[in-house]
Amino acid sequence: MTNETSMTNDTITAVRGIEVGHCTDARRPTGCSVVLARAGATGGVDVRGAAPGTRETDLLAPGNLVETVHAVLLAGGSAWGLDAASGVMRWLEGRGIGLTTGTAPGSLVPIVPAAVLFDLPVGDARIRPDADAGFAACEAASSAPVEQGSVGAGAGASVDEVRAVWYAYPMATFVTAEHFDDAVNALGDVREGSRPIAGARRAADSRELLDAAAAALAGEAVLPGLSGTNTTIGVIATDTALPKTRCMRLASAGHDGLARAIAPIHTMSDGDTLFALATGKAGEAPQADFNVLCLMAAEAVERACHRAVRAARSVRLPDGLWLPGLGDTPLKSN
Amino acid sequence: MTNETSMTNDTITAVRGIEVGHCTDARRPTGCSVVLARAGATGGVDVRGAAPGTRETDLLAPGNLVETVHAVLLAGGSAWGLDAASGVMRWLEGRGIGLTTGTAPGSLVPIVPAAVLFDLPVGDARIRPDADAGFAACEAASSAPVEQGSVGAGAGASVDEVRAVWYAYPMATFVTAEHFDDAVNALGDVREGSRPIAGARRAADSRELLDAAAAALAGEAVLPGLSGTNTTIGVIATDTALPKTRCMRLASAGHDGLARAIAPIHTMSDGDTLFALATGKAGEAPQADFNVLCLMAAEAVERACHRAVRAARSVRLPDGLWLPGLGDTPLKSN
Repeated sequence: MTNETSMTNDTITAVRGIEVGHCTDARRPTGCSVVLARAGATGGVDVRGAAPGTRETDLLAPGNLVETVHAVLLAGGSAWGLDAASGVMRWLEGRGIGLTTGTAPGSLVPIVPAAVLFDLPVGDARIRPDADAGFAACEAASSAPVEQGSVGAGAGASVDEVRAVWYAYPMATFVTAEHFDDAVNALGDVREGSRPIAGARRAADSRELLDAAAAALAGEAVLPGLSGTNTTIGVIATDTALPKTRCMRLASAGHDGLARAIAPIHTMSDGDTLFALATGKAGEAPQADFNVLCLMAAEAVERACHRAVRAARSVRLPDGLWLPGLGDTPLKSN
Repeated sequence: MTNETSMTNDTITAVRGIEVGHCTDARRPTGCSVVLARAGATGGVDVRGAAPGTRETDLLAPGNLVETVHAVLLAGGSAWGLDAASGVMRWLEGRGIGLTTGTAPGSLVPIVPAAVLFDLPVGDARIRPDADAGFAACEAASSAPVEQGSVGAGAGASVDEVRAVWYAYPMATFVTAEHFDDAVNALGDVREGSRPIAGARRAADSRELLDAAAAALAGEAVLPGLSGTNTTIGVIATDTALPKTRCMRLASAGHDGLARAIAPIHTMSDGDTLFALATGKAGEAPQADFNVLCLMAAEAVERACHRAVRAARSVRLPDGLWLPGLGDTPLKSN
C-alpha cells in the first residue's frame, strides 16, 4: 500500500499484482467475478453474516498452513455459484499457477477461496454461474479499470427484500489508496451517513425509500429473509506485504465499512463475507501504519457500497416486480 | 442415538436417516463418498488440521442460520475434489431435496458441506473426482452396510509420508451405537494403544514399521509435508436430535479419537476435518447423556481409524514406490 493514487484507474486493479474479470450471464442477471493474483497474495477472510456460502475459507484461518492465494472468486447463484471456483482453478492450472505439490502433471493446486450471494429470484433460478463462467471471468481478466455496473457477481444482486420490495444494483469497486471490489445484495438499506440511498421502498411501484432500519425499530412488519438471500461479498486488496493474520484483520476492518454503509447488516439472512489480499508489490514505497490501513479498508468498503448502488441498473423480475436501479432511476428519501 | 446396535449392519448406515454411496475411479485409486441425509440432519464441523480443503463449512458455525444439512461429501483429489459436491447438489435437487428459497423452478439449494484429502501422487494426478463422481456416489447410495476397503474418498488415501514411505489404505466405517465414516490420509502412524499398526516403514521395501512419532522425538529427519498432503476426514452420525452447537461439540470430540489413533496428528500438513450429523430419528428411544455421546464419538473415530487401515489394500505408485495395505500385507512393529 502506498500513498500513490492512480490518475487513470480508481478501481481495485490499481493495486499492483491484481487483475479482475467478470462473466455476466445475459439470460438473467447473474454472473461471477474473479480477483486474480497471478503472482500470489497472502489472504484473509472474515465471514460475518449468519448465512454464508463459501469455499476454501478454512485454509485462510490464522495459523493454518497455506499462505498464498492465487485468486478469489465471487459469484451469484447461491451455493450453486461455488462451482465457478472450479473454472478459476482450471484456468490457473493451465497457466502453471498454483500450489506445487509434486512434479507430476496435475500436481498443481491453485488456491481459490470463494463466496457467493443469493440472486436466484432475479430471472430463471435454474441459470447459475458454473465452472465455465469462472473460466470465462479469468479469460476476461486484466489490470484495466474494472467495469462498473450490473456485471459479474453483482449482476443479479439487489438490495432489501423488506416488504418484498427489492432494489437492483451491481458489482462495484472503489479505491482510495486501499482497494475494494464488492457485490452488494443486502437485506438492509444502503446509507450515506444516516440517509438511505437505496433499499426498501414504500410500495412496489414507489420511488420513495422507506428506511428499513427505522421501520423495523418502529415495530413495522419486516419480511423474514431466507437463508443466504442477502449478502454483501467483496475483496479488499493492498500492495503492502502482510502476513495472513493481518489480512484477516484487514478483512475484519472492512466489515466496519459495511456497518456504516448498510443497515441492517450482518443479519441472520446475510452471508456477508470479505476477503483481503496483500500482494506485497509495493516494493520500497513507504508502508502505511497498519491501523491506518484498517481505517482505509473500512472507508474503501463503505464508499464501494455507495458506488455500487449509484451504478445500478433497473431490472424487472419474472413475476413483474420492478427493481429500480439508481444508475437509471432516481429515488427519494425523507 | 440409542443403545440398540444393529446385528446386521455395524457401519454408519445403521444410523436411521443416513445413506452412504461411494464412487471409485478405477483409473487410479481416487474417488468420493457421500453421506446422505435425505430428510435432513443438523450438522456441525471441526476443522482441526492446518491444511484443510473445505466447502460450505462456514454455514455450520454455531450461531449461523442454516440448521439442516442434506449431505456431506468427502473426496480425494485435493481442492479439485470439492467439485464433487456440485454433483451431490444436482442429485439432491433432482429429488426435490434442499433448502427452499422460493417457489420458482431452480429455487432449491441443497446444503452439502464437503472436505477433501490429498491423494494426487497416487496415480495420474490429472484424474480427480468431479461433479459427475459426486452424482454417481449419490446414485450408489443406500442404507445397506457400507462397503469397506479401498473405495470412495479413501481409495487413494495413504498413511505417512515420513521418509517418503507411504502406506495405502481405504475408506472405513465403524459403528458402536455411535457411527463414524472416514477416510484416513495421515502424516502420522495409526496406532492401537501406543503401538503403530500402519505408517512409516524403515525403508521403502520394508514391512517393518518405524514409529514416526518416536523417530521425530528422537531427532531423526522427517520429511516436511506439503499443504493438504495429509488429512483424515470423516463423518460422525447419530440419530439423536441435537442442535448445531452440540453437533459441533460432537465433531470436536471425534478429534480426540483421531488423537488416540494417529500420531502425529493435526499437523501443519494435515487437513483433518470431522463433520457430525444428527438425524433426530431416534424417536422415543432413550437418549444418551451428551458427555457419553461425545465419549462414544471419540471411541468410534478411534476404532474407525483402526478398521480403515486393517481393510487397506496395497498399491504401487507410478514411480514404483510400493504402499503396502494391511488388508493384504502384514506389517510388524517393535
